[in-house]
Amino acid sequence: MKKLLIIALVLLPFFSFAQSAMQPYLTLEDAKRISDAAESRAKQDNWTVVIVVMDASGNLISLRKVDGTQIGSIEVAQAKAKSAALFKRSTKVFQDAVVANPGVLSLPNVAAIEGGLPIFKDGVIVGSIGVSGVTSAQDGIIADAGVKAY
Amino acid sequence: MKKLLIIALVLLPFFSFAQSAMQPYLTLEDAKRISDAAESRAKQDNWTVVIVVMDASGNLISLRKVDGTQIGSIEVAQAKAKSAALFKRSTKVFQDAVVANPGVLSLPNVAAIEGGLPIFKDGVIVGSIGVSGVTSAQDGIIADAGVKAY
Amino acid sequence: MKKLLIIALVLLPFFSFAQSAMQPYLTLEDAKRISDAAESRAKQDNWTVVIVVMDASGNLISLRKVDGTQIGSIEVAQAKAKSAALFKRSTKVFQDAVVANPGVLSLPNVAAIEGGLPIFKDGVIVGSIGVSGVTSAQDGIIADAGVKAY
Amino acid sequence: MKKLLIIALVLLPFFSFAQSAMQPYLTLEDAKRISDAAESRAKQDNWTVVIVVMDASGNLISLRKVDGTQIGSIEVAQAKAKSAALFKRSTKVFQDAVVANPGVLSLPNVAAIEGGLPIFKDGVIVGSIGVSGVTSAQDGIIADAGVKAY
Repeated sequence: MKKLLIIALVLLPFFSFAQSAMQPYLTLEDAKRISDAAESRAKQDNWTVVIVVMDASGNLISLRKVDGTQIGSIEVAQAKAKSAALFKRSTKVFQDAVVANPGVLSLPNVAAIEGGLPIFKDGVIVGSIGVSGVTSAQDGIIADAGVKAY
Repeated sequence: MKKLLIIALVLLPFFSFAQSAMQPYLTLEDAKRISDAAESRAKQDNWTVVIVVMDASGNLISLRKVDGTQIGSIEVAQAKAKSAALFKRSTKVFQDAVVANPGVLSLPNVAAIEGGLPIFKDGVIVGSIGVSGVTSAQDGIIADAGVKAY
Repeated sequence: MKKLLIIALVLLPFFSFAQSAMQPYLTLEDAKRISDAAESRAKQDNWTVVIVVMDASGNLISLRKVDGTQIGSIEVAQAKAKSAALFKRSTKVFQDAVVANPGVLSLPNVAAIEGGLPIFKDGVIVGSIGVSGVTSAQDGIIADAGVKAY
Repeated sequence: MKKLLIIALVLLPFFSFAQSAMQPYLTLEDAKRISDAAESRAKQDNWTVVIVVMDASGNLISLRKVDGTQIGSIEVAQAKAKSAALFKRSTKVFQDAVVANPGVLSLPNVAAIEGGLPIFKDGVIVGSIGVSGVTSAQDGIIADAGVKAY
């Protein structure tokens, strides 16, 4: 019995080692639920937008473009989502920062307009949402509705 | 006789509306139905893929990435869909053409691998589907299932 | 009564055609007329410019470069036209917006200088004009002359 | 009198030397005439194409897209014209070359498909024409009609 306990204690670090290099990630089902919530929020006010969900590396998991949304928003929504994922922060933070510090605009993958939000699980980044199509403040409201559905 | 004249006058605006420079397009609902059909076909064989639906100009309307799909397929599926939309043909046509005519590989926006299909309405291009993740022949089967749902 | 039924049956296909997912678009003839008007306005003051007309997705329909125009304007005129089409607004709006909100400069396909104008038909975007070569205010005057010819 | 003639003959090479750092170039009027001829040839067979005329550096002077032409041809026609201008040869030469020598495909600005032709004046390159939309052989016929109008 004592032997078994010793074995268990000796094995423990290996078990936890084997289990340690893990990270949470967004599934397609997560992305659909997030997008559905964002799309519902947008439709509530007849806002036409593109809704993007990305993984923690800024890779697309889901994109949908509501009919009538300006074409330019397809790339803008992706830029916002990528920026939020790669820098783990709301793109609103960059929007505010560039006023005093325009040099931020020279950084790759920075989209300095509200509408991109990171998505965390237990403090770990798992992805992001990016919304574009209406005003940046409205884009932000839609993005927030999406994050809340996660 | 007078009645016919009235009918003609009533019909006139509809005729002229119908005859003006108008073209059909894919809606988000169309894109979702197409994507759902493609995703169902993929799941039937546990194939992990990215499914993209674009408009006639090669702009994204919808993208979804099934869990576990290789990251490279996110851009490949878009490249296939764009190629099929911009050149109004299956990317399989390019795949076959480059064997005798390798110069095709030098053309912008040509993806010369099966898995991209144009979508037509009454002979007019309205968009395309692009699939990537498994073998190109399997990608093609999934894309075909998507088109059939339109 | 029977006659009305026949009329209704005759009308039906035109109604459904008119109501399906259709959108207006610019023809090459439209683009030539728009470009001719813009070119005439430019020549009136011996202004050397590039004049671009694009479709609603920011694809080129027509481009012409007046002799002696600076080479840089070839791409600038396209950037303005693309921005106006993709965001359905005058590039002057962006030029003004970036003063208070410099983050706009980080958005893909935004050209924040006057000289790009969207073109609408019955409230639906059909394309755009982009002009570059002289001062941005003068570019704007030429672009406006083009739009008025549509 | 005879002396004057001798002086003139002696001076002639110096005059031409003084005038030598000059090169001919295509005007917008040239480009329109070339494009009109190409467009007429295309319409003769109801071929839908994009017609591009560039200067000797591969910069756009003129572009026009016939209604209904596949969107992909907008960039392909430019790629062909640029290739013909930058390498002073028909893109058909590259199309043939890549069969034995596929490495040509790795070179920047090479479009290895018929439909791009250089335009010369007195043996000096002044620009090029690029056509895309139908088969590459048909594109070539249209491009040729354009060059002949110069």
